[in-house]
Amino acid sequence: MEPKSDFRTMKGYQLADKPRITASMEDYLEMIYRILKTQPLVRVNDLAKKLNVRPSSVSKMAAQLNDLGLISFEKYGYIGPTEKGALFGDYLLYRHDVLMDFFCHINNSADELEQVEKIEHYIDEKTVFNINRALKQLKELKK
Amino acid sequence: MEPKSDFRTMKGYQLADKPRITASMEDYLEMIYRILKTQPLVRVNDLAKKLNVRPSSVSKMAAQLNDLGLISFEKYGYIGPTEKGALFGDYLLYRHDVLMDFFCHINNSADELEQVEKIEHYIDEKTVFNINRALKQLKELKK
Repeated sequence: MEPKSDFRTMKGYQLADKPRITASMEDYLEMIYRILKTQPLVRVNDLAKKLNVRPSSVSKMAAQLNDLGLISFEKYGYIGPTEKGALFGDYLLYRHDVLMDFFCHINNSADELEQVEKIEHYIDEKTVFNINRALKQLKELKK
Repeated sequence: MEPKSDFRTMKGYQLADKPRITASMEDYLEMIYRILKTQPLVRVNDLAKKLNVRPSSVSKMAAQLNDLGLISFEKYGYIGPTEKGALFGDYLLYRHDVLMDFFCHINNSADELEQVEKIEHYIDEKTVFNINRALKQLKELKK
């Protein structure tokens, strides 16, 4: 039986086809749902700091993501999750983590963030799952 | 002992740091040296057709690559190799082939060109060599 996290990311994957979103939107969503793993809401100003952009840019993007149903943009500059967005956000975090884990493993290194950030938007769902499968096989070999 | 092709691409890799070239320049060089594997010179017009761009764009790019010593831009619209360019071109072809081979293998598919074209410029040399090593291990597992 597949672990629960795979099941949830598979739902994220199925959603992934629906909203045709840009690489930049993906970066925002990834960061938003990363933060929302540990707290119920995130403030526009905090997100702007994390992403190194202006708060006005965050507000503009947040309005678009809200219109797509991927976040809930609340009063007073607070951003909260939606069910649809949380599934998709889980998939983006999963994709990021799989690629990071894979590159770190093959390169025997602790940080491959730059490469992962550059390529993650272009790796399709099938490939993400199959890289994860290959990674498990490679890790078995090392045991 | 490493196979000869790895040695040659390693020289390409060492060169790769020198000319800081753009993704678009890499696409041109990759195609030029792919064609030069089977013929001594390539015409600007033929290259334009292969890359689906205008001949004037090819001429402009060819002049830049000539200035960097990566190709020899001859009279009458002919492009020939240089030693430095051929080493670098070999590396670009190697990088492309490794990534294509890897994605096709893990996805059990025959064509992963779109993903490879999108990400190849962002995969560094260390990662290319280590993906190739991982690929060999995965292929061994299948035997």
